[in-house]
Amino acid sequence: MDELALIEKIRARLTNGDERVRVGIGDDAAVLAPLRGGAVLSVDVSVDAVHFDRRWLSMEAIGRRAFVSAMSDLAAMGATPVTALLSYIIPPGLGEESVLALVGGAKSAADALGATIAGGNLSSGSELSITTTVVGEANEPTLRRAGARVGDGVFVTGTLGAAGLGLRLLAAGRADEEAARSFVLRWCELRARFDVVDRIRAIASACVDVSDGLVQDLVHICDESGTAASIELARLPTEPGHFALAASIGEDGAELALTGGEDHELLFTAPADAEVSGWATRIGEVIAGRGVTVRDEDGSERALSRTGHRHFAR
Amino acid sequence: MDELALIEKIRARLTNGDERVRVGIGDDAAVLAPLRGGAVLSVDVSVDAVHFDRRWLSMEAIGRRAFVSAMSDLAAMGATPVTALLSYIIPPGLGEESVLALVGGAKSAADALGATIAGGNLSSGSELSITTTVVGEANEPTLRRAGARVGDGVFVTGTLGAAGLGLRLLAAGRADEEAARSFVLRWCELRARFDVVDRIRAIASACVDVSDGLVQDLVHICDESGTAASIELARLPTEPGHFALAASIGEDGAELALTGGEDHELLFTAPADAEVSGWATRIGEVIAGRGVTVRDEDGSERALSRTGHRHFAR
Repeated sequence: MDELALIEKIRARLTNGDERVRVGIGDDAAVLAPLRGGAVLSVDVSVDAVHFDRRWLSMEAIGRRAFVSAMSDLAAMGATPVTALLSYIIPPGLGEESVLALVGGAKSAADALGATIAGGNLSSGSELSITTTVVGEANEPTLRRAGARVGDGVFVTGTLGAAGLGLRLLAAGRADEEAARSFVLRWCELRARFDVVDRIRAIASACVDVSDGLVQDLVHICDESGTAASIELARLPTEPGHFALAASIGEDGAELALTGGEDHELLFTAPADAEVSGWATRIGEVIAGRGVTVRDEDGSERALSRTGHRHFAR
Repeated sequence: MDELALIEKIRARLTNGDERVRVGIGDDAAVLAPLRGGAVLSVDVSVDAVHFDRRWLSMEAIGRRAFVSAMSDLAAMGATPVTALLSYIIPPGLGEESVLALVGGAKSAADALGATIAGGNLSSGSELSITTTVVGEANEPTLRRAGARVGDGVFVTGTLGAAGLGLRLLAAGRADEEAARSFVLRWCELRARFDVVDRIRAIASACVDVSDGLVQDLVHICDESGTAASIELARLPTEPGHFALAASIGEDGAELALTGGEDHELLFTAPADAEVSGWATRIGEVIAGRGVTVRDEDGSERALSRTGHRHFAR
């Protein structure tokens, strides 16, 4: 592969007139116009056979998914997407067309989010990985993990466990079934919840995106806030058919909702009486202490076999 | 390895009072204070057995080297280092102490450059890699690859080929010899030339850092500027003993100076009569046309077997 020729092809596909990017691809570094609110920065990696499986996703879908997964961290901070840098490690045998498809997936995801791609890096290596650095502009107030107060409610957008179930349906060879379709898409075509960020910023005391799994990410809020939290299993929002479909492959639907990971919904704390109908669900409360407690329908504490998602391969 | 416990240890080592970083490690993303000049961003990766060899460098040195290599791109843009994000892919068997040593190396490099580390990411994978996103503040004028004018001189800081020769001495098992020492250190302990950036900004029409190799990086300037360049072999600055030491391991000292790579000196164009004595060397001139010509001492054009460095393993 001719690295320099490939970089020129990537540059031709990504160049655009974003006035927030003063210098883009083709120099030693990208230069952004000053961001009044300050820059919000995060880095995320997708590694072959750890975060995705090439049998299940096209290269374009892998590129898109890696990009959105990284951008989701900006949603969790209440930031506005601006631009990104892409760094690929490319193994022998992965051709130029595959790399361009990865870039194309990232570009389509960037377009959908009103963001651009300002630069990146290519390297050879033995294992395909996609490291995405995302840049947003901070909005006041910035959402943080710290800030939850005892007495606040715990809320989550959308539904939980669908991406985790979709992944397991893929692994079980059940992806082609009609009932599996929407779950598999939740894993394959994850979305970042920028659509509800303004509503959350108006009421939230703390926020995180659900990437590790509901319980683990709620632990993050609690640890940073110096609080504990209690959630009620019966309140967890799931997709229609979630429990039956999970049971059909020997999985516990409740466990998937609690720890499945990669939902990329937003989990936040806010006054317990906050009005969220139609876009979020109150699932528990912030209490004094440490850690997260899950209560079954009869009020008893549920023992968790694990708190979070560790990706599928390791 | 307990990823969350390791992140807490990393956080404890990296937390500091940098007022330019409003939110650092421990949230979904880092938040920077607004940078008046705008942010300058670059990403660079160091992959095991591609960019380094664990037999030759301690983990701390690997971490330090990866960090400085990334920061060198900010020097090439004339920017001031601010902060960085570290993303590690960690293979099975690489323990917590090794990861903390990588972080320690990055931290010591950041301290030396007046920069901090604002965040990062850990992932498992089969191959160790270190992806560093660096953030600087732009200074006016920003140095660019584009801007060289016909009639300008071509200048370079420091000496060329020493890092490439050091790497080949390591590979040849000659690193322990007294004569080899300074060359090996040039590769192992590369430095970024922020010390001369202000001087270059005062006179330069274009600039790049010499990472791919002198000829390849001069091609970058020429391509972006719409010019050609001619350099004179006899003018290339090299370390004392460079040619004899290269010959002793069967290498062509001139070829190493032209294409050895990883010098991380700054290559720039400026008025041909610019005063650079003591800190840079004029090695050629910008001419009309395309590409880079190298002239031997007798004025004949030298044929190059390759234009740039492709790292040592592939």
